[in-house]
Amino acid sequence: MLGNFSYHNPTKLYFGDDSLKYLRDELKNYGQNVLLVYGGGSIKKTGLYDEIVGILAECAKNVAEVSGVMPNPTVEKLREGVAVARENKVDFILAVGGGSVCDYSKAVSVSVNCSDDPWDKYYIRFEEPDCEIVPVGCVLTMAGTGSEMNGGAVITNHEAKLKIGHVFGDDVMPKFSILNPRYTMTLPKYQMCAGIYDIMNHICEQYFSGEDDNTSDYISEGLMRGLITASKKAVADPQDYEARSNIMWTATWALNTLVSRGKTTDWMVHMLGQAVGAYTDATHGMTLAAVSLAYYRYIMPYGLKKFARFATQVWGISPGSKSDEQLAKEGLDAMESWMKQIGLVMNIKDLGATEEMIEGIADATLILKGGYKVLDRDEIVNILRQSM
Amino acid sequence: MLGNFSYHNPTKLYFGDDSLKYLRDELKNYGQNVLLVYGGGSIKKTGLYDEIVGILAECAKNVAEVSGVMPNPTVEKLREGVAVARENKVDFILAVGGGSVCDYSKAVSVSVNCSDDPWDKYYIRFEEPDCEIVPVGCVLTMAGTGSEMNGGAVITNHEAKLKIGHVFGDDVMPKFSILNPRYTMTLPKYQMCAGIYDIMNHICEQYFSGEDDNTSDYISEGLMRGLITASKKAVADPQDYEARSNIMWTATWALNTLVSRGKTTDWMVHMLGQAVGAYTDATHGMTLAAVSLAYYRYIMPYGLKKFARFATQVWGISPGSKSDEQLAKEGLDAMESWMKQIGLVMNIKDLGATEEMIEGIADATLILKGGYKVLDRDEIVNILRQSM
Repeated sequence: MLGNFSYHNPTKLYFGDDSLKYLRDELKNYGQNVLLVYGGGSIKKTGLYDEIVGILAECAKNVAEVSGVMPNPTVEKLREGVAVARENKVDFILAVGGGSVCDYSKAVSVSVNCSDDPWDKYYIRFEEPDCEIVPVGCVLTMAGTGSEMNGGAVITNHEAKLKIGHVFGDDVMPKFSILNPRYTMTLPKYQMCAGIYDIMNHICEQYFSGEDDNTSDYISEGLMRGLITASKKAVADPQDYEARSNIMWTATWALNTLVSRGKTTDWMVHMLGQAVGAYTDATHGMTLAAVSLAYYRYIMPYGLKKFARFATQVWGISPGSKSDEQLAKEGLDAMESWMKQIGLVMNIKDLGATEEMIEGIADATLILKGGYKVLDRDEIVNILRQSM
Repeated sequence: MLGNFSYHNPTKLYFGDDSLKYLRDELKNYGQNVLLVYGGGSIKKTGLYDEIVGILAECAKNVAEVSGVMPNPTVEKLREGVAVARENKVDFILAVGGGSVCDYSKAVSVSVNCSDDPWDKYYIRFEEPDCEIVPVGCVLTMAGTGSEMNGGAVITNHEAKLKIGHVFGDDVMPKFSILNPRYTMTLPKYQMCAGIYDIMNHICEQYFSGEDDNTSDYISEGLMRGLITASKKAVADPQDYEARSNIMWTATWALNTLVSRGKTTDWMVHMLGQAVGAYTDATHGMTLAAVSLAYYRYIMPYGLKKFARFATQVWGISPGSKSDEQLAKEGLDAMESWMKQIGLVMNIKDLGATEEMIEGIADATLILKGGYKVLDRDEIVNILRQSM
């Protein structure tokens, strides 16, 4: 059944190949000092940087920049951004990039007016912001994390070998996000596929928990079926606008709190994947792919009915006279075939993990309790070994 | 493919059997003069009225009331509400009831500070509000219309024999809505079933349009499958909280703009049903049920692939070697069986329509152009005759 909950998602979205035209009007709602945040500079190659700088100039904004935000934004980079934002008295942050740039911008937004160190406050003590939050807007160039319509912000601390996400409340969600599927088309295939699996796993993390019948799981099944169809088309032809637009829109709804309403959730694949990421700095979606099958095959007996339902409702496997065990197995086999078909990395060794790292990765894995089986440390080590 | 669109839904939702407790905090955000709007007085029998009046008193609000809002709110009642709101200088409207009470409250909210007659302005000239809108909050007691999270407001003009909906923008959407599935349990079964079909048809109206592949349709399929499952359980046991909560949550997402993003939509069943309603004053959901099958069977050949998909993805019909025609037919047959199983009214005669009314109902039917076949007046007459 649907447990008690609240739902509020104030982010305004502009979607489509003409969506950048709304940036001008949105900027009018915010202050004069803008912090422009972006990544490794691909937006300079594509011309998007020039377009955005042009719009900011038209709006007579004072622009400071933080560039070079890395795929797994570090705590050092976060502190740098906070310093730049303070120096320039920014009253608006414009994130142009993928989930990392959006996550990073949100982490800066809650830290600019806060005297505590952001890592300690938000990622160790898990406090909520008690200072003025600088509003954030996003121009998204990559589909995957859902960061464009949620309050999540993952930060990596290489020294501590920790990669931790803090999900902030609706006052930290972007005020608006501009989603143009064409911007995602210049992405290398490896990144596109990693994003696709990130989306799939966001849904699975919320789906594989609980025994009840609830609306959220039906929505999840619809989203997953649409994603599987679109992903095959996008891999066959990355310029397929229909497929890329469906992937982008699914990403947003996979992690904007809707499909977790009224239910428990798992998130252990993310905990495992983030620990792998902290050790290898590998692409987030690929770390999830590389640990997923070992994890799901291990917990399957504890959530058998849901895994059987996953097989029939998501992968279209005909139940016939098959047992739940058989169905559940076939469902995960179908997922494995699809993962290989779209070109995901299927083990953590290929991401740079070594035997020597396993104990450390296990130590860095947060153990959550919402899934079908609460793991102990030995089980985590075993799953990591199975993922090698 | 997903066409270009924007999405913004600022309504805050509190869901669950404890959700009324949030009313107190929400009321603090609004002014002192509250207009309490409700229907025929069932909330007095259930005790909800006393609870809410108690909370309003605790918050030291000045309360004016409009009661007796009918299932199809009339333009005369609308003018009465506007007058009461003006006299009492209300700065907040609290709707307690089903979709009609919510719709009505929104229609009042855009009319209080406007000198034009609301019927002429919003339902004949279809203008947008250019005056201050009074904020609305809802406590929902019936699941169906989705009015709790959208900008829709349907008003009936019996004199003109017109029942017309105006879908206002996000500034007219309720600021918050309180959704307690238990409140829906005191509803007569007839009303519950009418609500269930209203939800189903909201989704169908958005689903049966367009040839492309898009995320919205996958979400719709998930919502429909969940609704079908929950409806059977709720009919078997109206006190089944799990089923009632799933129905209530599905209703919200069936018509809060999500499943129409990026696609064309139909809405002809609503046009037909509303015209029947204007002549018979019958329950909205039942008017939709009574005209649906004649309409869908008539347009099926023009949208064959979608109707075949509906059969396999929503009703679980195995495609085998069946033709699209066969599948499409079996899908609608499955829907018919389900409609009969949950006890819907299957023809307009049983709702009070007579042969003599048919020409008038046809005249009152707005012809929309988003479906698989743009109807002419003769076709509308034929569909109405088939629905007798």
